[in-house]
Formats: sequence, structure tokens, C-alpha cells
Amino acid sequence: MEDKVAVLGAGSWATALAVLLAGRGCPVLMWSRRAALAEEINRQRRNAGYLPGVDIPENVHATVDLAGALHNARAVVFGVPSHAFRETLRAALPELTAQTLIVNAAKGIEEDSLLRLSRVFAAEAGEERLCRYVVLSGPSHAEEVGRGMATAVVVASADPAAAGEAQDLFMTGSFRVYTNPDVTGVELAGALKNVIALGTGIADGLGCGDNTKAALITRGLAEITRLGMALGANVLTFAGLAGVGDLIVTCTSMHSRNRRAGIEIGRGRTLDEAVASVHMVVEGVRTTRAAYRLAAQYGVEMPITEQMYRVLFEHLPPRQALENLMSRGRRREMEEVALAAVAWRYDRVQK
Amino acid sequence: MEDKVAVLGAGSWATALAVLLAGRGCPVLMWSRRAALAEEINRQRRNAGYLPGVDIPENVHATVDLAGALHNARAVVFGVPSHAFRETLRAALPELTAQTLIVNAAKGIEEDSLLRLSRVFAAEAGEERLCRYVVLSGPSHAEEVGRGMATAVVVASADPAAAGEAQDLFMTGSFRVYTNPDVTGVELAGALKNVIALGTGIADGLGCGDNTKAALITRGLAEITRLGMALGANVLTFAGLAGVGDLIVTCTSMHSRNRRAGIEIGRGRTLDEAVASVHMVVEGVRTTRAAYRLAAQYGVEMPITEQMYRVLFEHLPPRQALENLMSRGRRREMEEVALAAVAWRYDRVQK
Repeated sequence: MEDKVAVLGAGSWATALAVLLAGRGCPVLMWSRRAALAEEINRQRRNAGYLPGVDIPENVHATVDLAGALHNARAVVFGVPSHAFRETLRAALPELTAQTLIVNAAKGIEEDSLLRLSRVFAAEAGEERLCRYVVLSGPSHAEEVGRGMATAVVVASADPAAAGEAQDLFMTGSFRVYTNPDVTGVELAGALKNVIALGTGIADGLGCGDNTKAALITRGLAEITRLGMALGANVLTFAGLAGVGDLIVTCTSMHSRNRRAGIEIGRGRTLDEAVASVHMVVEGVRTTRAAYRLAAQYGVEMPITEQMYRVLFEHLPPRQALENLMSRGRRREMEEVALAAVAWRYDRVQK
Repeated sequence: MEDKVAVLGAGSWATALAVLLAGRGCPVLMWSRRAALAEEINRQRRNAGYLPGVDIPENVHATVDLAGALHNARAVVFGVPSHAFRETLRAALPELTAQTLIVNAAKGIEEDSLLRLSRVFAAEAGEERLCRYVVLSGPSHAEEVGRGMATAVVVASADPAAAGEAQDLFMTGSFRVYTNPDVTGVELAGALKNVIALGTGIADGLGCGDNTKAALITRGLAEITRLGMALGANVLTFAGLAGVGDLIVTCTSMHSRNRRAGIEIGRGRTLDEAVASVHMVVEGVRTTRAAYRLAAQYGVEMPITEQMYRVLFEHLPPRQALENLMSRGRRREMEEVALAAVAWRYDRVQK
């Protein structure tokens, strides 16, 4: 087996990870659906539409041939939007062996099935393959990773050996990789944070201040943690890089598409207009619908998600949503989290 | 007893809280050391130096007479810098009764004794008075509270009744107050977050990006949580408004003096120059020294605090500090937090 790594997708995050891996000396095969984009990468050493200003090293080769990209790769990085993960995985499976390390960099919940992406993987590839499946998440805008700016992320796998391999694969002096055994928590935190980012973007668009935004982020973190725990995640993961770390960067940076879409909605644009203005996939829209359904299914109180759902899909004016949140009754800060946390067990962390 | 509330101090936070209480209809007596400032408040209804642009209502009266301000007050809000808390409390004690509600809005650790401010209060006023002591914390820039922008904070007391009274005293449609029984955690989170804010400010001053900042905030949260737990705090408090909420606002807003001082240091200024440029108290400088000593005393690993200490007090170049942080060995994200969390007990939350 070669040292070759395949990167599936040619969006901003896939490209940044390809550049990172190439910088570490790996031969990288990038798969893109679009021949023109593959050609731009190979000839101009650029991906101007998705990662402008970043030089793509010579040891990255882009192709539209999926099987060729995957052939003999020791690791495959999935850098496609979450809604395209199942389809891409199906197409890739014939070229994957039981030893291939799978690293998924997508953040989302499958909309119809409400499945986390590791469950989609298990459904398609078989449960026994999960020991080679790793999710990579954390506060990592592609624009900054592509420029080599200091970044820290987390990798989670059911098998610590696979997480360790992914750590070794990506870690550099400017890209710090932590391992975490809580796959469920890392997946859910990465997906659900986009709901809160849309919400804080809306608050920005309404002209709210830093206090309001910090309150939305913190109470948003509390409610996505509650849902996460109901689904079997570890509360501490939500306090880590995939949780609070990614939440902060997504809610405060202009690099965040979810935040930018939220700002447009806060300024009075429709959902369709806002999504169109961002020009890329806004994962938080689908995730809001998924989170809303999961909250109902598991009986978890998620006031911010509920207001977000009503704004996005039921035409509730954003300012009214904010007022609804501020006028709830008196609360003890940690009651719901504390009640759920007693169910938390140390052996889950050690697993 | 009247409905009168005394606010001690006339800085930006004290003034914003006085304006908030006055807006709820409370007669407010503000105590300032400086006669000129008291006169400005009483005559011009302004505090231009500390809270420019905010109108101070007629039912706020400022005075230099501490005993007069306190006389018959049903509640006293301490809005002085943490290093002045003991001295101000001593002077106030003769006018406080066993029933007076004490609300402390200062965030810090006493430097020589390394005591939290509730312990300073107990040492001066007696342990039996702690049932009337409340700490108020959370993401709440005075500039925004003064303008009535939506804000959420937390109040903590050893006695839930006192916390409930403080909740009732402050809560409005734009100022949401949560209660939390973990006094230790709320105090430590509020103080220690300033160390991390200085650190992220330095990263900003060095020209680092949003990924770097989010990583510093998240790993900073992990290490102040570790110290907090070693000192008896509840891990969940650090995930709440006094922890992550205040950390976010302090690390991302230009209203934050700690952040602004850090930016100047990152740009190459000395500590003294940076503090002088901010014109107000920079709590994080004293707190860095206190946290560094507490970490040594309790054997808690705090890499960011250690680098901060070396930058502030031992002339370590900021860029070298960042490199030291990025070049640490491979880590599992949650190991230290998880090990400390097994000691966490539900009864502590309920206390």
C-alpha cells in the first residue's frame, strides 16, 4: 500500500485539507465531480472559487475518476457536504479495503433518516468497518488552515488506534490534533453548532450586541448539549474543540457561511435569498430541521432551535423570536444539564 | 426598610447596574470616592468617563458619603475592582445588617491571600452572613447593559433564597438572570476567564486568525475548568454564562479591557504600556499571577496560563509563547477534565 491519501470533494475544506496533507509530504489525489475544477487545480495550482489565494502544492493531483483517486489509498478523507456523504460513500465503497482509514470532515445529520454520518457509514459499509472510521471536527475555517494559521481540531473514532492514526496523519506545527473517544458527541456538536450559528447571525443582522450573542452562544451550547446527552454523547465533548470551540468560530467569524446567511435573514431577507447570497452549502438550514425533529422525538427542550425553526420555516419575524427567548420564565442555569449529567458515566469516556 | 439599593463604585459596570436598577423603579444611591464624579452624575445625569452616552435616571443619586449611601438599603451592590473589595467591605460593614442582600459584581481573586471574594466576605463579615451573599457574573459589557441591549447573567449564592432575591431584583425584559448554586465555580470562572482574554488578545495582536483564537478559548476553558474543579467548582458552571459565555464576550469584543491590553502586548508593547493604554483596571494581570500560583499549589497543568505568566512577568516574546503551546505532545482532548470530573457529585449541584 502506498502513502497516497485520497481527498473526496474539492470545496474549501477539502482543498485546505489536501494542501495540509501535501505539505506534510503525502501524495494527495483529490476527486472532484467537475472536470474544469480538477483542471484548474492541476494546471493553475489554484481553487479560486473555493479557496482563493492559496497555492496548491505539486503533490496534489485532482481527477474526476473516483476509482482512480481511491485506488491503493491508505486513507480517504471525505470532504463532501453531509447530504452528499451517503451517495459518495456508496460510489467509493468498491475501492475501500477493510484497512483503509476513513476520515470524515463533513458536519451534518442526514435529513430524512436523522442519522449521524458514522451511522450512515455503518449502514452502508457494515458495523465492523467502524473501527476504521474517524470523524474530524473543530474550529477550523478552511481559509485559515489553507494559509497555515495555527489551528486545533479533534478526531474521534470507536477505535483509539484509528484516531491515533488520523492524529499522526494530520498533525503539524500549526495544525494541532487532539483525540477524543466520543464519536457521537463530536458528530452531534459539529452538526448542531450550525443551528446556533444561524441564530447568532440573525441576532447580528438585527443589530444586537456582544452580550446578546454570548448569551445565545452559551444557552445554545446548553441546549445542543442536552440533545447530545439524550442521544448518548458525553457532556464534556460539548465543552471541547468540536463543541464550544467550533461554536465560537462559527458564531463570530465572517468566514462562517451559516453566520453570514443568518445575518441576511436578520436584515429581513428570506431564507432562499439568504442562502443564495452565500453561494455555498449552508449546512445549518438542514440541521435546524433535523435538530427540531430530534428534540421532539427525544423530548428535549430546545428553545433557541425552536425559535430558529419558526423563523426559517414558518415566517416568524426574527425580532419576535428574540423577544420570545428573552421573555421565558425564571430559570436555574444548570438544572436540565445537571439532571442529564447524572446519567453520565466515566466508562463511556474511557471506551 | 426601604426599597433603596446602594451601589458602591462608579465605574462602568457599577454605573450600568445602577441605571438598570433605576429603570426598574428602585431608588439607587451610588457611592463614589470622587466628589467631581458624584456631582457629574447628579447634575449632568452622565458618567462620561466610564459610561459615555448613557442617560442616568433621576432616581439615581450619587454621593461620597458611604454610610449615607448604605443607610437602610435593602440590597448593596459592590461594583468596585476586586482588589478594592476587602477595604470597601470593611468600611461598609457597620451599616450592613444581617438581612442586607449583598451582591458582588467584581471578578477577581485576592492577590496575596489567593482567596475568592466570597471567602474575603466571610473572613470580614463572618461565615453566617454568607447566606445573604450573592455573586453576579456572566457576559455583560457595561456599555451594552447601559443601552438596554439583551443580556443574560447568572447569580450564585450559598442560599437559593438569596439568589432568587437577586434574580428578582435585576431581571427585566432585556436583562435575563439565571440562578446557579455553585458560588465557587461562578467566582472562579469570572476571574480566570480574564487570563484567557489577555492571551487571546495577544494572539490577535500577533495577527493570528479565528481558528487560533477559538483554540485558545477552548483549551483555555479546559484548563481554567481543571483548576476550578481542583478548587471544588462544578464542571458545568464553566460551560455556562459565567464560564464560556463570559469567556466568549471577553475574548471577542473590543469592549474588553483585558483583550485590548493583550492586543497591545501582542503588538510589542510592554505590560505597563499596555495597561496604561487601556485607562482602566485590567483584572487579568493580577489574576494571571494568582492563577499561576494556584495551579502550582494544586498541581494543575495550565499551559496557557503558564505561557501568559512568562510573557507578562518574565519577558517571554509572545510569538515564542504561541509556538510553545503549539508544539506540546499529542494529547487526548478530555483526559484531564474527565479524570477530574469523576470526582464531581450531583449533591454539590443541589447544595
